[in-house]
Amino acid sequence: MQRTPIRSHSAWSETDRIHVKGFDLCQDLLGKVSLGDMAFLELTQRLPTKEESTVFNAMAITLVEHGLTPSALATRLTYAGAPEAMQAAVAAGLCGLGSVFVGSMEVAAKMLQEALRPQGLEPEKPGVLIKPHNIDQSDLAIQTLAEQVVRTHRDRKAVIPGIGHHFHKPVDPRAPALFKIAIDNGFNGPYIALMKAVALQAETVYKKPLPVNATGAIAAIASELGLPWKIVRGVGVMARAIGLVGHVLEEMRQPIAREIKTRAEEEATEYARNQK
Amino acid sequence: MQRTPIRSHSAWSETDRIHVKGFDLCQDLLGKVSLGDMAFLELTQRLPTKEESTVFNAMAITLVEHGLTPSALATRLTYAGAPEAMQAAVAAGLCGLGSVFVGSMEVAAKMLQEALRPQGLEPEKPGVLIKPHNIDQSDLAIQTLAEQVVRTHRDRKAVIPGIGHHFHKPVDPRAPALFKIAIDNGFNGPYIALMKAVALQAETVYKKPLPVNATGAIAAIASELGLPWKIVRGVGVMARAIGLVGHVLEEMRQPIAREIKTRAEEEATEYARNQK
Amino acid sequence: MQRTPIRSHSAWSETDRIHVKGFDLCQDLLGKVSLGDMAFLELTQRLPTKEESTVFNAMAITLVEHGLTPSALATRLTYAGAPEAMQAAVAAGLCGLGSVFVGSMEVAAKMLQEALRPQGLEPEKPGVLIKPHNIDQSDLAIQTLAEQVVRTHRDRKAVIPGIGHHFHKPVDPRAPALFKIAIDNGFNGPYIALMKAVALQAETVYKKPLPVNATGAIAAIASELGLPWKIVRGVGVMARAIGLVGHVLEEMRQPIAREIKTRAEEEATEYARNQK
Amino acid sequence: MQRTPIRSHSAWSETDRIHVKGFDLCQDLLGKVSLGDMAFLELTQRLPTKEESTVFNAMAITLVEHGLTPSALATRLTYAGAPEAMQAAVAAGLCGLGSVFVGSMEVAAKMLQEALRPQGLEPEKPGVLIKPHNIDQSDLAIQTLAEQVVRTHRDRKAVIPGIGHHFHKPVDPRAPALFKIAIDNGFNGPYIALMKAVALQAETVYKKPLPVNATGAIAAIASELGLPWKIVRGVGVMARAIGLVGHVLEEMRQPIAREIKTRAEEEATEYARNQK
Repeated sequence: MQRTPIRSHSAWSETDRIHVKGFDLCQDLLGKVSLGDMAFLELTQRLPTKEESTVFNAMAITLVEHGLTPSALATRLTYAGAPEAMQAAVAAGLCGLGSVFVGSMEVAAKMLQEALRPQGLEPEKPGVLIKPHNIDQSDLAIQTLAEQVVRTHRDRKAVIPGIGHHFHKPVDPRAPALFKIAIDNGFNGPYIALMKAVALQAETVYKKPLPVNATGAIAAIASELGLPWKIVRGVGVMARAIGLVGHVLEEMRQPIAREIKTRAEEEATEYARNQK
Repeated sequence: MQRTPIRSHSAWSETDRIHVKGFDLCQDLLGKVSLGDMAFLELTQRLPTKEESTVFNAMAITLVEHGLTPSALATRLTYAGAPEAMQAAVAAGLCGLGSVFVGSMEVAAKMLQEALRPQGLEPEKPGVLIKPHNIDQSDLAIQTLAEQVVRTHRDRKAVIPGIGHHFHKPVDPRAPALFKIAIDNGFNGPYIALMKAVALQAETVYKKPLPVNATGAIAAIASELGLPWKIVRGVGVMARAIGLVGHVLEEMRQPIAREIKTRAEEEATEYARNQK
Repeated sequence: MQRTPIRSHSAWSETDRIHVKGFDLCQDLLGKVSLGDMAFLELTQRLPTKEESTVFNAMAITLVEHGLTPSALATRLTYAGAPEAMQAAVAAGLCGLGSVFVGSMEVAAKMLQEALRPQGLEPEKPGVLIKPHNIDQSDLAIQTLAEQVVRTHRDRKAVIPGIGHHFHKPVDPRAPALFKIAIDNGFNGPYIALMKAVALQAETVYKKPLPVNATGAIAAIASELGLPWKIVRGVGVMARAIGLVGHVLEEMRQPIAREIKTRAEEEATEYARNQK
Repeated sequence: MQRTPIRSHSAWSETDRIHVKGFDLCQDLLGKVSLGDMAFLELTQRLPTKEESTVFNAMAITLVEHGLTPSALATRLTYAGAPEAMQAAVAAGLCGLGSVFVGSMEVAAKMLQEALRPQGLEPEKPGVLIKPHNIDQSDLAIQTLAEQVVRTHRDRKAVIPGIGHHFHKPVDPRAPALFKIAIDNGFNGPYIALMKAVALQAETVYKKPLPVNATGAIAAIASELGLPWKIVRGVGVMARAIGLVGHVLEEMRQPIAREIKTRAEEEATEYARNQK
């Protein structure tokens, strides 16, 4: 039977040298490259330009800390049971970054990348973004695509990802802040244009304010940075891992997990007792 | 019964503003702060100085990518079974960052922080580092502590964490590189001095080369940065989460998980068949 | 804002008594009920009849142990890094029970339950199986449904779940064994009939042997037992958790994780070194 | 370099036959063996006698469902974020079965097995229980060991595992129920005797009621069944995985995760807003 060779472009070592993604860790990276730029390197196999670094880091830090989310609570409840294994507490928190919360960025990025994907020319490869053809953004191409996107979602009765917010009304302040950073750094391409056009078109069709939200802004910017949609969720996963370590630390100092569990248990018990 | 109030210094939102660790996300952080500095903020509740940022980021990036570790393989094997849940693949990889691999930094930091902890003065609080008293590092205090540390470990037949390396011989190149960055940025305090002294003392006692390794350097530097030992493993957890997302992406493009599973299964089956 | 009350039918305690799913744990369950029957209780909120117990346990044990699967390897690699947290090793293994492996039972059960669901009468509630109307299985109703199912999948170019097997050819021996147990115990209803009919119809259409496999048999039997498709994967999750504990024990006694990692790392390193 | 061969006693397949732990799955196990007995097989490499089956299943079902524990809440919060990956929700719940909750069984079993371990005769092998020598339980041997155990813990200021309960007072009803089942089935050996003697001795020394609790009973019974202490936590892990699937199902039908998160978030936000 044919064997697949085991290859990796991640890292390998010599006794006196460590190679990471094609760089010498000690000579090329340590003291010269930030954690965010290492993340960019993991995602693109190269170091970012100064502009890319600014935009990528802004996008990533948006996702680090969202307070007492279900994910943060899962981490803290897990830590309460297994304080000797804090890595498992962070892991438990990550497990919930699925379709409902962080995963929505992926859906938005997929929407944008599929809409702008050149048709019929190149076969799709997993985890590889095919850049869109040059699109004259001043013309009607983007508007036409936005109309198609909104119509397709409406026909499927599907929610359009990346627009509107149940709490941050009328505008999710992260979206304009992120777009400004992207544009100031030269990232003002078709994905951002399409994301904005989709929001405007949706507002026209659904007759209510549906501005681009943080999810939509990140999806568009990640696409501009060249990240294939299948890995966009990963930006949220790495960022949130950082935030969850912060929650472990806070749980050490100001524990709330047992209180949350006690309240839930007492309320459920009170009800069950009365049903007996 | 007395209730514990639910408090958090993590994040909270107003409709038009997001507060993260005391900062306004959009005004104070986006575009101004890197992912590594956000990590520092999560761990210390403040932004780093320029020097702290350089040192912290160097320490953190050392831990991002170690190639085909058991943890990376667990992530890739998990991704092969559940590609729709990449967050769970990263979580699976994190679960193995325990006592054998990344957790050893914690043990080394504990060793240093307990040795340098002022005795009998302040009660220990979980997750809080009590700074050592000023120690005249030119005198014998550090050497005396190092001798105690080595003796205690020897008496317990315990391995001294943070020194020696099974592969990077005679010297783990990351340790001097990290120490140089720390010292160039003004971090040359008692934890680094003690870590180096422990290594020298161990070499004297065990009569073989046992230089400080990456684990020891990171433990010492994390202590200099004020991280309590109980959260030091967390630096590894957050860094490795970034690297594991990179492995997910590589697994999409150049899958190896099935091959690894097939080889293991075939070898085990061949043996079992012959035993029948 | 309206609050949702916290309710649970799971368990609650008095000082001298423990209530589990409506039973007194010590008086009603201990010594009288097996682990498999407790699992049935968790899934259906009642204890099984003798026949249901036989069928459910047969179905469940099919899923306990599949050897050196990606999931088992993930558990063993994780255990090698964090032997002090074996629960996290089992968790890591479970994380991979997604769409590719165990999750396929869910897809097959969904296919059967949606095909047999009475149309337009009752609103769907999450996690609740609507029983099919009485179907005269001797007539053409099942055959008609099977034709629809195969046609729909073919039109969507979707793989029909629950039939064929890449290794167990011509027949997956678990499927007839499980069906025999189900039928011997009085479970010979429309879901089993439809699963068999789908396989026959697929063989006719695709002109190759596509008998029901273990996945299909389990999906059909789980449906006969009244499990809604959304929880069918859970039978695999609970069963495999048992098997993964077995792998942790075997890894303690006959470790293979480090060897697997070393081989992968060496092969990747050899290649990387030659590329330099 | 010397290679470790990849071996496993777990399972392997022929095209028409599946071998699990030395049995033919379809002929020997399906329809004949319950899920609990499969669990016993995973832990001991053989099927249980009728008496062992009764005792093992009783022990295991004690651990399936404990209501709204931190672990169950972690599962439910994770499910709320990633309903498409219920295996990850169960995994998140398992991650917290550490030293504080389920892991305590392991500590109690270790205490018993180390106390009764024949000294100096046989080298310890990981994951293998060395049976105690025949101990005349009517004589003073057990009492002497119990006194040693209590004294050792007292000297170390360590909590004695397996005795006392913060809620089930004066007696945890599960302990006598489990002991009765064990004794009725012929399991009345030195581990149970020692566990009881430790509790009596602790009551004498600490001058308060400290009867054996469920943890202690399970640790003693697991030891009687021949399970090495390092895998005892695994009985809890497999049992709780079953219960956590039940919580996923309940969360589908009667969700509470979002409510728990909303309450925590609102209380924390209220406080943070007032601090501003």
